[in-house]
Amino acid sequence: MKKIYSVLVENRSGVLCKVAGLFSRRSFNIDSLAVGETDDKTVSCMTIVSSGSAHTMEQIEKQLNKKLDIIKVRTFDESQSISRELMLMKVKYNKSNRKDIMEICAAMKADIVDMSKNYMIIQICDTSDRVGNLIDMFQSISVVEVVRTGTLALTKCSETEQ
Amino acid sequence: MKKIYSVLVENRSGVLCKVAGLFSRRSFNIDSLAVGETDDKTVSCMTIVSSGSAHTMEQIEKQLNKKLDIIKVRTFDESQSISRELMLMKVKYNKSNRKDIMEICAAMKADIVDMSKNYMIIQICDTSDRVGNLIDMFQSISVVEVVRTGTLALTKCSETEQ
Repeated sequence: MKKIYSVLVENRSGVLCKVAGLFSRRSFNIDSLAVGETDDKTVSCMTIVSSGSAHTMEQIEKQLNKKLDIIKVRTFDESQSISRELMLMKVKYNKSNRKDIMEICAAMKADIVDMSKNYMIIQICDTSDRVGNLIDMFQSISVVEVVRTGTLALTKCSETEQ
Repeated sequence: MKKIYSVLVENRSGVLCKVAGLFSRRSFNIDSLAVGETDDKTVSCMTIVSSGSAHTMEQIEKQLNKKLDIIKVRTFDESQSISRELMLMKVKYNKSNRKDIMEICAAMKADIVDMSKNYMIIQICDTSDRVGNLIDMFQSISVVEVVRTGTLALTKCSETEQ
């Protein structure tokens, strides 16, 4: 079972450590984590993807709600939310595979954001599954480096209407 | 002074806590953090943006290099790297501002990724500055919610050639 936690926290030193500590002490698994600003400078949003049993998921939510610096905890199922992650991938290309690379990028709506004589950087912003698919498709091409953010999520607009 | 740290760590519970603890104990500021997978499943990449004096930045790098679970630490200046972050923003729209929203999105290469009768979710993947600009432009429109990942970075292709 996979769950997305969106945790609004006060934007100050030490809060990240407390939340990371909570997961670590109880051996809750963090699949991915994204920490960034919100529209309020004093508030950060931590989006945590974790997997485990229904019981574990419930425990995590309870524990998070107990922490003082945490303003709000929400959980999303994948079906009720729009989720996206960002990946940057550096590849070494040559004349013979450049066309393949460009066709895959066009089909997957990935962008080439930097390029030199032998290298290019490809950017994709999509669901975690589709980002994984793009990496798989590049396995036969020379991948130099891959970096990914954690998953971000918002409840779907149709859910917000209710 | 702003610096981007790209830290390759072993992908297991507790490592995030150690790194967060290092920043917290010494009151090093974390402006943003992104933790995600790499092309090697056993290795995660933490991208940390921190600001402070040149001395502080040097201290952070030294301390990171001492940690056992850390495989590799690299630092980037903004000028030598391609950096991107992802933002999802939910806005409440109406007939009178829908055209404005769509024009801003087209000009800023932002995508509308979900929409219902009254709400839409806008996605942008760009530099931190441009993401900030988009948020500013929406201040006069009804923003419901904003979530951002931390910054991701890779060295520019031209630097890799050398």
